[in-house]
Amino acid sequence: MSIIKIERKVLEKNDAIASDNRRQFQEKNLLVLNLLSSPGSGKTTLIEKTITNCKFTKKIAVIEGDVQTELDAERIEKLNIPVVQIVTNGACHLDAQLVRDAFKRLVDISFNLLFIENVGNLVCPAGYNLGEDHKVTIISVTEGDDKPLKYPAAFRNSTAVVINKIDLLPHLNISLDVIRTNALKINPKLEIFEISCITGEGIEKWCNWLNSLMR
Amino acid sequence: MSIIKIERKVLEKNDAIASDNRRQFQEKNLLVLNLLSSPGSGKTTLIEKTITNCKFTKKIAVIEGDVQTELDAERIEKLNIPVVQIVTNGACHLDAQLVRDAFKRLVDISFNLLFIENVGNLVCPAGYNLGEDHKVTIISVTEGDDKPLKYPAAFRNSTAVVINKIDLLPHLNISLDVIRTNALKINPKLEIFEISCITGEGIEKWCNWLNSLMR
Repeated sequence: MSIIKIERKVLEKNDAIASDNRRQFQEKNLLVLNLLSSPGSGKTTLIEKTITNCKFTKKIAVIEGDVQTELDAERIEKLNIPVVQIVTNGACHLDAQLVRDAFKRLVDISFNLLFIENVGNLVCPAGYNLGEDHKVTIISVTEGDDKPLKYPAAFRNSTAVVINKIDLLPHLNISLDVIRTNALKINPKLEIFEISCITGEGIEKWCNWLNSLMR
Repeated sequence: MSIIKIERKVLEKNDAIASDNRRQFQEKNLLVLNLLSSPGSGKTTLIEKTITNCKFTKKIAVIEGDVQTELDAERIEKLNIPVVQIVTNGACHLDAQLVRDAFKRLVDISFNLLFIENVGNLVCPAGYNLGEDHKVTIISVTEGDDKPLKYPAAFRNSTAVVINKIDLLPHLNISLDVIRTNALKINPKLEIFEISCITGEGIEKWCNWLNSLMR
């Protein structure tokens, strides 16, 4: 049996479980966002800001994915938000089975919006369907304006991209326009948000978008 | 046949080719460094600065690994340095076979130091031996001070870590001390370099280290 066949089998099995996840999410009437990015682009901080700054009447829960540590779950827990940490022990992405297992621990809790924070990795998570409504890719301006071209799958499979840490732009030789243009070259349908979680710039537009998806 | 058995077979086959690579590198009396980092931490820029700023009598060649595009190889080529681009087409790391194939194209060229720039990914490349003398992990201060704890394999398997973009520290709520402490918690033997490729701070110490390895 070839490795490619094994991979196809793994992806087929994943897709079947992802469909089951989606059914469960719809039964609970949830909006589910799968957040992808490199390590340190600001996924957890964006979730924190969404919790503290978006004036939702809706409730949030979070599934955290990490290779190691429960540091991210601890950050979310401090905000009194239900959170489940998945530690992948070296695996470079979440899969539908891991999310199904984590979701079981949230089943008795009432909420409307579920963030799934994937492992910090701009390559592997892009290929795995978890049953989410939308993938959202976060990129920090410090990572350079060529990243959409170099890591196209995440941008191609996402509904939206958050260009984060724009407060650092004055200190960088980076063009927001070029990031935007390159992202749209890969996926012309992308919603683009330009955000600083430090100054709060752009957060309101992001909140409004989330609200519109939950209507 | 189980997936774990297949994975073990893949790694065994990779290690065998890596040993062959190492033999070839030693025959040519090369120092070979395998550079690991997240996307946008500054691997290519560090290679550029090494080429332009280190006063080596030795010659450099580069193998570039990317999921897509030849952008990085084009940057190195501009400096008149022999470079081979590997495009992995979605694969999240280089493997020994890809490096062996790339190295064939450098075999008639005279050089002493080979940089292998891995795919931008702090997870997958850490597990693959390419036949290098040393792995070096690059982390940008913008990525946060918890990264060594959250992505330990890269730090555990590296000889050195380059903490990059230190010129941005005044604009960040990040402690260099905490990055350093966390890195040493994972691997107490790590050589640590604190560098700004913009201001040039720390580059000389890095050059001296490379020189000492080539003696």
